[in-house]
Amino acid sequence: MTLYERCADDIAELIRNGILRPGDKLPSVRDASLARGVSRSTVFQAYYHLESMGLIEARPRSGYYVRTGSQPVSSPEPVDSTPDGNAKEVAIGPMVFELLRSMNRRDFVPLGSAFLNPSLCPLTRLARHLGAAMRDFDPWRLIEDLSPGNESLRRHIVLRYGLDGMVIDPNEVVLTNGAMEGLNLSLQAVTRPGDVVLVESPTFYAALQALDRLQLRSLEVATSSAWGIDIDAVAKALKGQRVAACWIMPNFQNPLGSSMPDDRKKALVALLAEQEIPLIEDDVYAELYFGARKPLPAKAWDTRGLVIHCGSFSKCLAPGYRVGWVAGGRHAARIEQMRLMYTLSPAIPSEAAIAAYLDHGGYDRHLRRMRAALERYRAIAMEAVRAHFPAGTRMSTPQGGYFLWLEMPESVDASRLHALARERGISLAPGALFFNHPRSTHCLRLNYGHAGDPRFAGAMQTVGRLAADMAQG
Amino acid sequence: MTLYERCADDIAELIRNGILRPGDKLPSVRDASLARGVSRSTVFQAYYHLESMGLIEARPRSGYYVRTGSQPVSSPEPVDSTPDGNAKEVAIGPMVFELLRSMNRRDFVPLGSAFLNPSLCPLTRLARHLGAAMRDFDPWRLIEDLSPGNESLRRHIVLRYGLDGMVIDPNEVVLTNGAMEGLNLSLQAVTRPGDVVLVESPTFYAALQALDRLQLRSLEVATSSAWGIDIDAVAKALKGQRVAACWIMPNFQNPLGSSMPDDRKKALVALLAEQEIPLIEDDVYAELYFGARKPLPAKAWDTRGLVIHCGSFSKCLAPGYRVGWVAGGRHAARIEQMRLMYTLSPAIPSEAAIAAYLDHGGYDRHLRRMRAALERYRAIAMEAVRAHFPAGTRMSTPQGGYFLWLEMPESVDASRLHALARERGISLAPGALFFNHPRSTHCLRLNYGHAGDPRFAGAMQTVGRLAADMAQG
Repeated sequence: MTLYERCADDIAELIRNGILRPGDKLPSVRDASLARGVSRSTVFQAYYHLESMGLIEARPRSGYYVRTGSQPVSSPEPVDSTPDGNAKEVAIGPMVFELLRSMNRRDFVPLGSAFLNPSLCPLTRLARHLGAAMRDFDPWRLIEDLSPGNESLRRHIVLRYGLDGMVIDPNEVVLTNGAMEGLNLSLQAVTRPGDVVLVESPTFYAALQALDRLQLRSLEVATSSAWGIDIDAVAKALKGQRVAACWIMPNFQNPLGSSMPDDRKKALVALLAEQEIPLIEDDVYAELYFGARKPLPAKAWDTRGLVIHCGSFSKCLAPGYRVGWVAGGRHAARIEQMRLMYTLSPAIPSEAAIAAYLDHGGYDRHLRRMRAALERYRAIAMEAVRAHFPAGTRMSTPQGGYFLWLEMPESVDASRLHALARERGISLAPGALFFNHPRSTHCLRLNYGHAGDPRFAGAMQTVGRLAADMAQG
Repeated sequence: MTLYERCADDIAELIRNGILRPGDKLPSVRDASLARGVSRSTVFQAYYHLESMGLIEARPRSGYYVRTGSQPVSSPEPVDSTPDGNAKEVAIGPMVFELLRSMNRRDFVPLGSAFLNPSLCPLTRLARHLGAAMRDFDPWRLIEDLSPGNESLRRHIVLRYGLDGMVIDPNEVVLTNGAMEGLNLSLQAVTRPGDVVLVESPTFYAALQALDRLQLRSLEVATSSAWGIDIDAVAKALKGQRVAACWIMPNFQNPLGSSMPDDRKKALVALLAEQEIPLIEDDVYAELYFGARKPLPAKAWDTRGLVIHCGSFSKCLAPGYRVGWVAGGRHAARIEQMRLMYTLSPAIPSEAAIAAYLDHGGYDRHLRRMRAALERYRAIAMEAVRAHFPAGTRMSTPQGGYFLWLEMPESVDASRLHALARERGISLAPGALFFNHPRSTHCLRLNYGHAGDPRFAGAMQTVGRLAADMAQG
C-alpha cells in the first residue's frame, strides 16, 4: 500500500465501524496533514480516493463529510486469495451451467444470478424507441449497418468516452453482441492455443470459460476485495513466464465488487506496456458507481493502443438487447473482422433502439436513479448479512455494481450451501465458480441487485441460517 | 450418375436449350419408360426430380408439363473443380474483407453481395410486431428467454420441420445469432485444432474463415453446379484420412447454386454415419426454392443425431435481426453451452418480433411472393449473362436461392475483373474467394437477388463487356 492508500484505508475503517458517522465532518486537509505527519497532497489523494469510493463527499467552501449513503459496516474485508503463481490448463465443471440454468428461473430468488432486475431499466421507453426506429427504417441500412455498425450509436459511445476526458477514435469502436462477445473476440484476437493469460483471483467465470474454449492457460493473481489486483504480484508473474494477455475488471469487479484506485490502474497499464502485453478490460459496471464520479477505466492511461476496453448496454440500459462494444486500440480492425466472421453483427433493431434512446436524452437521469437504487440495495444486503450470517463472516464493500463477496467461516461449504438453498428455491453462486482449480470453498458471490424483490429478505435469512448451522457444525 | 439422374439430365438439357418449351407436355411415364427402355419407376423418379428442380410441373389428371417459369438456358453447366484431395491449412486473404466492406455500400451495385435486397422482406409488418411485442413485455422474460430461448419461436421452428415431415425434438433447437454463429459453434463443438474438415469445392468463404479461425485443415471435395458434392469423391476422401466433420450446403449452395438430389443426401448421411462423422448442414436458403416443394435437408435422413442442421430467418424474413437456429442432434446441449459462453443469446426483441410475426400468420404467403420474385430475377440475370458475357461462358441454373455461378473463358481473370468493376461502382465476388488455395480464377459468384434494382441491367452489361474485352485479350 502507498502512503495515501494507508491513510484512506484508516479513514474508511473508521467509517465502516461506525466511529465516523454519516454527516460527520472530516479534519481539514491541513489538519490531517499535520496530525498524520504526511504531505497535504497525500491527504488530498486519500480524500479524493474516498470520495470516488462514495464514502465521503466534498461540500463547496466547507470541507469533506461522511456521505449519508455510506453505510457503517462492521465486517472486515475478506482475506485475499493466494494463488500458487503457476499457469494452469482450465477445466470448467458442470456447476456453472447448472447455475446459469437456475439463474433464469423466475421461481428462484436470484441471489446467485449474474443479472440485474430488468425492471430497473427504462424498458417501456426503449420499446417505444424500438418500434419507432424500425417503423420507418431505411431497408438498405439493414445491410449498411452491419459494418462498422450504427453510426449514431458509435458516436454516442465516443461522446461518452469524451465526457470522461478520453479521446477515442470512432474507428476503434466495434459493436458486439453484448460485452461477452467483445471479451471473447478480444481474447481470441491476441492469443493462440497454449498461451498464458493473466486473470484475477477470483475472476468472473466467463473469463475461465473463454480460456477453456480457446485452450489457453490461466495465471491467477491475488486480488483484493478492496483494491483489486495486486500490482506487485502481477510484476512478479510477468517475470516468471511469457504472458500473452491480461483480462481484468478494474471497476466493481465480478465477483469481488472491488475497485482499483487510479494510480494502480496506471501502474498496471505501464507494467503491461513494458512487454507489449494487451490488457482486456471488462468494464461493464462502470456506469453503476456510488461515488462522486464515474471511475475511469485503465484504458484512460493507455497511450499505446494496448488496452482493449469492453463495455455494454446490457447492465444499465437494455438487458437482453445484446449490444455491447469494444474500444479495441490497435486490435480493433482484427476484432471487427472476427466479429464479421462469427456473428456478422449485433441485431440492427437493438442498435437502432439504443441509439434513438440516447438521441432523445434522459440516459443520465435514468442512471442516477439506478445508482441510488443499487446503493440502497447494497445497504439492505449488507445489513441482512450482518443480521443472519454466521459470526466471523467477512464481506467486501462494493463501491458500485451489484455484487458482494462473502467470506464465511471455513467450516461453511458454499457448494453444499448452494445445494441446500436450491432446494428452497434460492440460487447462489458459490466461490468455487470463480477460481480455476477450486479454492475458497467458503466464499459466495451475492447479487444484491434484486434486494427490491419482496422475497429477498426471507431468502437472505434462510441462507444465513443455513450457513450459521453449518458453521456450528 | 444413376439411371434416373441421367434420364432427368437429358430432359433438363432439352428444356435448357429450348427444344422443350414452357407449356409443352412431356411424354407419359409409360411412354417414356418404353421409349428409353427403363422402368416406370425410374421415369417417375426423374420427373419427380425435375419437378423439385422447378423445371416441370404435374397437372392433375393430365400429366407433366414444362413450367412457364423454367427458363430455356443455352449455357452449359460450369466444369467441376478438381481439388487435389489433400488436406490443407487454411489461409484467408484480405480480399474477403475488402468484399465485405464493398457489400454494404449503397452506392455500389451489389452483384458480389451475399445479401438479398431487404425490401423483399415484410419489414414494416416485422417492425410493428417488434414494437408491439416489446411494449408489454414481461421484464423477467429478458432474463428467462436467454436460455433456451423464446419458447414460441422454438415451437414455430419445430412446427415447420413437422410440415416437412421431420420430427425434431424441441430440446434439440438452439437459437443463435444468425446461422453464422450456429455454424461456427457447431464446427467448434465437434472439432479440435489441427482436425481435417471436409468441405465443398467451391465452398462459402465463411466456412473457410471458420476453419482458419479454429486452426482446422480443409479437405475440399469436387462439387457439381448441378448435383452438389460428389459422393464418390467423399467416399474416397474418407478412406484416405481421419475426417472430424463435414460442412456442406445441400440446397442452393453458396456459391454454386447447386442442389443435391434426395438420394445423394441420403447416401452422404449414410456414408458419414459409418464413421460417426458429424455433418454440419448450412441450409439457410431452403425456403427460397423455385420447384414444386421445399427441398428436404440432409438432416431428414439422419437417424443417429449426427447431422447438425443450421437455419436462419435472415435470408427470407428478418435481415439484420440476427436470429438463426441449430437443430443440433446429439451435439445440441454442447452447442447451447458454447453459445451461453460466447454471446449469451440472440437479441430478445428480435426473437420476440419473429415469434409474433409467425404467430400472426402470413409467412408462407410472403415466401411465395419472394420465391416468385427471385425466380423472375434469375431469368433476368441469366438472360443478361447470355446477352453480355463473352462467348463460352458457362453458368449454373440454380433451383432456388439467389446465387449464380459463372465460369468465363480461362483468359478472364475474375480478380482483375473485380478491380475494374469496383472502379465503376459494382461489387463482384471473384471465384478465388471460394477455394482454399485459389483456383478457378475465371469464375464469379453472381447475386441475382438485386435484379429488381434499376442499376442491375446496366451493371451486368458493364461487367459482361469488361469480361468480353478480357476474353479477347
